[in-house]
Amino acid sequence: MACVLQIGAGGVGGVVAHKMAMNREVFSRIILASRTLDKCKVIADSIKQKGLGEIEIDCVDADSVESMVALIEKYKPKLVVNVALPYQDLSIMEACLRTKTHYLDTANYEHPDSAHFEYKEQWAYDTRYKQAGIFGLLGSGFDPGVTNVFCAYAQKHYFDEIHSIDILDCNAGDHGYAFATNFNPEINLREVSSKARFWVKDENLAQNTDLKKDTIYRKFEREEKHFSLEANTQDLKNEDYFGGQWQDIAPLDLMKEWEYPEVGVKNSYLLYHEELESLVRNIKGLKRIRFFMTFGESYLTHMKCLENVGLLRVDEIEHNGQKIVPIQVLKTLLPDPASLAPRTKGQTHIGCYIKGIKDGKDRTIYIYNICDHEACYKEVNAQGVSYTTGVPAMIGAKLICEGKWGIGAAKIPNNADNSDMPKGGEFQGIDSHNGGGVWNMEQNDPDPFMAELNKQGLPYVVCEIDSNGERKILEDGRK
Amino acid sequence: MACVLQIGAGGVGGVVAHKMAMNREVFSRIILASRTLDKCKVIADSIKQKGLGEIEIDCVDADSVESMVALIEKYKPKLVVNVALPYQDLSIMEACLRTKTHYLDTANYEHPDSAHFEYKEQWAYDTRYKQAGIFGLLGSGFDPGVTNVFCAYAQKHYFDEIHSIDILDCNAGDHGYAFATNFNPEINLREVSSKARFWVKDENLAQNTDLKKDTIYRKFEREEKHFSLEANTQDLKNEDYFGGQWQDIAPLDLMKEWEYPEVGVKNSYLLYHEELESLVRNIKGLKRIRFFMTFGESYLTHMKCLENVGLLRVDEIEHNGQKIVPIQVLKTLLPDPASLAPRTKGQTHIGCYIKGIKDGKDRTIYIYNICDHEACYKEVNAQGVSYTTGVPAMIGAKLICEGKWGIGAAKIPNNADNSDMPKGGEFQGIDSHNGGGVWNMEQNDPDPFMAELNKQGLPYVVCEIDSNGERKILEDGRK
Repeated sequence: MACVLQIGAGGVGGVVAHKMAMNREVFSRIILASRTLDKCKVIADSIKQKGLGEIEIDCVDADSVESMVALIEKYKPKLVVNVALPYQDLSIMEACLRTKTHYLDTANYEHPDSAHFEYKEQWAYDTRYKQAGIFGLLGSGFDPGVTNVFCAYAQKHYFDEIHSIDILDCNAGDHGYAFATNFNPEINLREVSSKARFWVKDENLAQNTDLKKDTIYRKFEREEKHFSLEANTQDLKNEDYFGGQWQDIAPLDLMKEWEYPEVGVKNSYLLYHEELESLVRNIKGLKRIRFFMTFGESYLTHMKCLENVGLLRVDEIEHNGQKIVPIQVLKTLLPDPASLAPRTKGQTHIGCYIKGIKDGKDRTIYIYNICDHEACYKEVNAQGVSYTTGVPAMIGAKLICEGKWGIGAAKIPNNADNSDMPKGGEFQGIDSHNGGGVWNMEQNDPDPFMAELNKQGLPYVVCEIDSNGERKILEDGRK
Repeated sequence: MACVLQIGAGGVGGVVAHKMAMNREVFSRIILASRTLDKCKVIADSIKQKGLGEIEIDCVDADSVESMVALIEKYKPKLVVNVALPYQDLSIMEACLRTKTHYLDTANYEHPDSAHFEYKEQWAYDTRYKQAGIFGLLGSGFDPGVTNVFCAYAQKHYFDEIHSIDILDCNAGDHGYAFATNFNPEINLREVSSKARFWVKDENLAQNTDLKKDTIYRKFEREEKHFSLEANTQDLKNEDYFGGQWQDIAPLDLMKEWEYPEVGVKNSYLLYHEELESLVRNIKGLKRIRFFMTFGESYLTHMKCLENVGLLRVDEIEHNGQKIVPIQVLKTLLPDPASLAPRTKGQTHIGCYIKGIKDGKDRTIYIYNICDHEACYKEVNAQGVSYTTGVPAMIGAKLICEGKWGIGAAKIPNNADNSDMPKGGEFQGIDSHNGGGVWNMEQNDPDPFMAELNKQGLPYVVCEIDSNGERKILEDGRK
């Protein structure tokens, strides 16, 4: 029986609030706050209408630590569930520290002025969280989140040593329009068209011999541009990290035709994604980790054509005496992402393809979840991309409130070299300090989280893949 | 030895002025006027720099009949050469009528508020021009213009009766950018994405069995749109005209892989083009006439993607509290068409593929011109698309000043059914009235015009195509 304060009433926020309201034995009091009270009210009304009871709503400016502190002091929740914008992670973490309140989020801190994201500034809170005796859980969405837990679960039950991980994110949904983005186009398109990177500490694996060069995204590319491109897509380099190396790849340059069980073969592009940063530190024996996302020919072609004419530009330009930012004009023109939820059909499929050794033998394990867009909309008025992020946030919150994760709960320490950590993060994942501090998903016991996935709408499947590529199902949470 | 007043100092205007200055034995005095004196000055300076002598420059608001009359009275030219905007044809024609001055243009009147163009309002000047004893020459560019003359030339020398005409317009130029338009993108993209039409009075020919359905432009099309489309692209109908029928076709719906001699095979799309309207009236025995333009996969894909996101919309929308028109934003983002001239490589190829009967036998004749973008830029600072329009305008002006076309010159009467003509156009092409009136290109003797093409930089080739598709060259103006 706990009081939780949720910040953020967007697509994911709606899912989290609904799912918490479906677990009243744990979440006895739910407060939902965002900048716009109306958005909270829509969610509260829907929850009530679905017979899931009352939730309280409130207003807050999550950019302001003082406002956040005042809100926390008003309700004195056990936990703050942050599903606001990633720009607001630090102000909310700071408010939790000042009020000694547990913290959870789903996406790591992003600098407002760049598409760059990293855990460093959040890890720097670890020592202070330990000292305050509070628990901060980072990245409890699907990816990051469930994908990290899949890896920890594989490490615990299926491997003595994991050598390589490929995280596969497939959205096989169809909203019926020629082109739209599932969330804010400004963030989405910049992220996808940013340079990719993977981590490796093995020369052979660094060759990526299983991947091929893109010919779809680049089909209509010409070398000469009539405007200058952002440096972020161009400045490719290698960077040492945790005994291995980050290697940059040009945006959408490498791809593979992955087969997604129950969905089919999809063109999947190497991207950078935030869970890589923490998994490298926490999966023992790891030699390479990559992240792939599926993109259809139509999506990629639209993106390239829009880029070619200058529509993805983020600089201000002069237009008929006004100032406009092209990518913001594009955002105005495209369908509102929220309008896609009721019309999206098909499924999401996200999984971890893991290779390593068990009992001296090579082994390949694939763990995945499939989620149906229409079923999600029916259950909580959201499409699959919001659902798969929101449900794990609720599960993380549930485990914290139940004491299964967090203070007092056992931890899985990292590989014990924190020399590159920022000040305040020196003991992250090393010293459990009775469970206080700032923790990533895979540093907690995966078993209770995996059990909840099967109960809360995101059942998982584990298969073993033999040397002939044959799949054998070892666990199926849907049965 | 004549004084000519040229209106319009854009890309085509630059070519006309340069080419007139190269024919000083006819154009002894040249006045170039436009809204912007600076644009005239740039052209005058270039002409002087190339050793082609002085031209005079002046300012005028060509939308205003009074301003135009004042300008004509100031210089008392023999002829006004109109290469201003097509919206301004009527005000300039009216000023010529009031001052009893000969008139020439290259593109027919377009309503400022729609992509629709037609000759009707210009033909309505015919009786008044006849009464005033002045000559108005409509559409003396390449297409319309040279293409009309090619047809008249074929009719005069190669056929007893012409049954079908396909006008082929291929721009095989490359400016090196992924996407740009050769002239104002607002006009260009709306024209291309407007519905197509052809004219036919034969049921078999109406089937267009030689064409195939587009699969390139429509590859990324979805039925559902998140905004509403312009009616102009949707409202397809058939309309009786001159004993046959205009048949509408959805934009870019039908295409053919035409082989362009010396250039190669290019995907060519059925479009509507203005010369069809007059050729139907003037080519005896005609059963079908069509117009094709080449578009590459990249161009079509960019256009469709831009259309899909709403960038071709011409309605005003709200953006961050400002009003913007999407296609105007696109215009701001795309390269300035003028900047393409120095960087365009490759050729244009425009021709008329004509089938009919000579001496009781079937015959196929193809007449074409090839023009090199880089050579044009070297000669007159323009790319091929401006050059091929500007040179014929100068030739038309030259023939009028020399008395080879115009007052006193023989005419080729039309098919003598003017019952659908607007008031004032009842005698267009029927009564030569000593050569006064408003005339289309193909109603004049093609021979002196064709001879000038070979001398002035646009040499033509005539080939006969036999039943096996073999080409035999009958005339080659380059030799």
